[in-house]
Amino acid sequence: VPSPPTPEDAFAAIVGGDHVLTDADIRASYEVDWTGRFCGRAPVVVRPGSVDEVAAVVTWCAAAGVAIVPQGGNTGLVAGGVPVGEASGAVVLSLRRLERLDPIDELAGQITVGAGVTLAALQQHVAGSGWAFGVDLAPRDSATVGGMVATNAGGIRVLHHGTMRAQVLGVEAVLGDGSVVRHLDGLVKDNTGYDLAGLLVGSEGTLGIVTAVRLRLVPDPPDRVVVLAAVPTVAEAVAVATELRRTVPGLDAVEAVLNDGLALVTDAFDLTPALATEADVALLAEWAGDGPLPEAFADVLADYPSSAADDAAGRARLWRYREWMPDAIARIGVPHKLDVTVPLSVLAAFADAVPAVVAAAAPGARTHLFGHLGDGNLHVNITGVDPDDDAPDEAVLRLVAEYGGSISAEHGIGRAKAAWLGLSRSPAEIAAFRAIKRALDPAGILNPGVILEGRA
Amino acid sequence: VPSPPTPEDAFAAIVGGDHVLTDADIRASYEVDWTGRFCGRAPVVVRPGSVDEVAAVVTWCAAAGVAIVPQGGNTGLVAGGVPVGEASGAVVLSLRRLERLDPIDELAGQITVGAGVTLAALQQHVAGSGWAFGVDLAPRDSATVGGMVATNAGGIRVLHHGTMRAQVLGVEAVLGDGSVVRHLDGLVKDNTGYDLAGLLVGSEGTLGIVTAVRLRLVPDPPDRVVVLAAVPTVAEAVAVATELRRTVPGLDAVEAVLNDGLALVTDAFDLTPALATEADVALLAEWAGDGPLPEAFADVLADYPSSAADDAAGRARLWRYREWMPDAIARIGVPHKLDVTVPLSVLAAFADAVPAVVAAAAPGARTHLFGHLGDGNLHVNITGVDPDDDAPDEAVLRLVAEYGGSISAEHGIGRAKAAWLGLSRSPAEIAAFRAIKRALDPAGILNPGVILEGRA
Repeated sequence: VPSPPTPEDAFAAIVGGDHVLTDADIRASYEVDWTGRFCGRAPVVVRPGSVDEVAAVVTWCAAAGVAIVPQGGNTGLVAGGVPVGEASGAVVLSLRRLERLDPIDELAGQITVGAGVTLAALQQHVAGSGWAFGVDLAPRDSATVGGMVATNAGGIRVLHHGTMRAQVLGVEAVLGDGSVVRHLDGLVKDNTGYDLAGLLVGSEGTLGIVTAVRLRLVPDPPDRVVVLAAVPTVAEAVAVATELRRTVPGLDAVEAVLNDGLALVTDAFDLTPALATEADVALLAEWAGDGPLPEAFADVLADYPSSAADDAAGRARLWRYREWMPDAIARIGVPHKLDVTVPLSVLAAFADAVPAVVAAAAPGARTHLFGHLGDGNLHVNITGVDPDDDAPDEAVLRLVAEYGGSISAEHGIGRAKAAWLGLSRSPAEIAAFRAIKRALDPAGILNPGVILEGRA
Repeated sequence: VPSPPTPEDAFAAIVGGDHVLTDADIRASYEVDWTGRFCGRAPVVVRPGSVDEVAAVVTWCAAAGVAIVPQGGNTGLVAGGVPVGEASGAVVLSLRRLERLDPIDELAGQITVGAGVTLAALQQHVAGSGWAFGVDLAPRDSATVGGMVATNAGGIRVLHHGTMRAQVLGVEAVLGDGSVVRHLDGLVKDNTGYDLAGLLVGSEGTLGIVTAVRLRLVPDPPDRVVVLAAVPTVAEAVAVATELRRTVPGLDAVEAVLNDGLALVTDAFDLTPALATEADVALLAEWAGDGPLPEAFADVLADYPSSAADDAAGRARLWRYREWMPDAIARIGVPHKLDVTVPLSVLAAFADAVPAVVAAAAPGARTHLFGHLGDGNLHVNITGVDPDDDAPDEAVLRLVAEYGGSISAEHGIGRAKAAWLGLSRSPAEIAAFRAIKRALDPAGILNPGVILEGRA
């Protein structure tokens, strides 16, 4: 009787020896997230080159009971794409070699893309076609389409085009038993059974491993205008954002920097002050279209001191006051980063309450608030706290739950927030999640510990 | 030992005797669909008045192994909301009493609505608020929000606002074990676990019974322009539709009537001819916005003979040539109605091939094509065929599958198309559907036979 193959031998037979990484130095970059906060040990990193290879690896692991941590560009923030712990025993399955990039379907305004394609490569591929991809985010050179699908990535255009889930018209994926589901025809109206694609989006690699997706593209209008305005209060800024959403076709972003954030950025990078007035909110709005700016855009903002730009350099200058916030905060110290949504009706009250709740949990801590005002998504950054002190994080997440909000707007749950899932989801919902998990991953090998703690 | 309660007694204890219907005459309207094609016998019709009552009924049925057919406005076309067969033993669960209609959340542009609210009641409720509901369809006075959610309803605005799934930000639902899941805070960015809401949308009452939903609203712009244009070929019409989608912000609909359809409607209702020229396609495009019509709208259509209107009466007049197609066809005879999507890249070839395929399957039959050109959704109507002759239907659906299309664009699978699900979905996909069905409805009591044939 021959002895069973080792995992390395089995994987080498499937993907070729060059794509099975066992050397500790080579594995290292796959075992730690980019912030350096989460790491573990994976005895093997496997780099399949096709959906069939992914299916064969999953089938082998399901039979052997070996856990798999799928990994894309490794830009996540919640330990969803790296092993955690020295004895996890999980293999990392890197999807970066799945670089299929089909020609644009010009008629449909769609494209089929492999999981390993980076956002930047996708953007470059569609540039100049008259179509664009509807989701954009800062780590575009590293973040892969597969990872963005797995985490239902958001970003600044969500109020216009929706999250990743709204871009995905179909998926090719390997489920927990190694079976391959594929539905890539890009049919906008297709009521033939359950929405497997939508279910896999945002499931963080726990229900299936997405290998390719059919994506819708959006029009790529030639004109853009950005306005940065000083709005006296958060409540008024929320009302302004709503009025813009309701009356301005082509509104592409409504962002905000709260409290002393604008001064912080201005000082940190020695910028020219953008606004002559002090105000609770620096509100940034962008419109994209073809032809004249809708009158409503100027009307809604007419009462506020503001600065506007319609040329690329001017727009980039105004965006700095929002986009450089994370870097300005990082100059103060390593921040705790929380990413939450609250209903717009209570956003002002929440923003008002957060600093005191943080200060009570961590005396001397400083709270920084900025984010995507158009969809109620605030980034809560906290400085002046020990990196390992979870008290202010938990205090903020409990406050979010009290306000009916989500403890993870964009980043997902991963392993880092799995213990807190119950703050945003009821026992009945979590029981339903576990039932779905068991249905599509009966052996429990796909990214165990992510979203749901323990065995499903 | 007391004998177990009869279903009637058990239901009466939950919902009150007045809402348990057992009289055959009163039950009759719940046992047959509105076309009269599908009917069966349900010994009891239960009309719960709250989510707790729904949960209690489902819990009782799960324990007793009694099947449930959930029913909304009973406007479906695929036998998804009525019992089929004399001995089905299923109870009809009418959700029409769930008429919760919350005030509009003006800041978020959202509303929470009970499953039993009709589309017309919802539309009336939001009228004048500056917000509108993004999905519209003809049976609005009867169709309920719950039914529209269960079937992922589409209609003419899908290319602008998406299907029902894109409107639903959260659901309250009773799963197959009687547990209640509720997530109605309306958070646009919320990555806390699996997309249970999206999974329930379009599941046709087989995974859970939706009792309420949180819906997004869309802006309600004041200006509208409709153009009806004569385009020589289907291929050219598809290209025109794409160019409109790509270049006209606020494009609200692109519809088409093919071949002799325009003449058919004109003759049937003695209308003034809308266009001076004969053409393969009468293309109807509608723009909605605030202010001047985008130049691209006129530019794209400039080469074609056309008729335009920007006043309500004129727009309604142009819409007749599209909206009265079903009635014009009905004057010829009882049609077979198929509702399919094919990829835009092959839509012209498909439209060209259909009549011959129909004629081969049913000599003497006549094919009528019209639909939602903007998203590849064609309604294939066939006249001159025996109502019970499935041969032309199957021939068309097989052709759809050959072209990579969907055998159900809008109407769902129901019981009527369950045998043909394999034309659009692979064995691996169907196996995944069955696993999900077993996970959320372990007793198999929720609308058995719908989507999936036999026991899950």
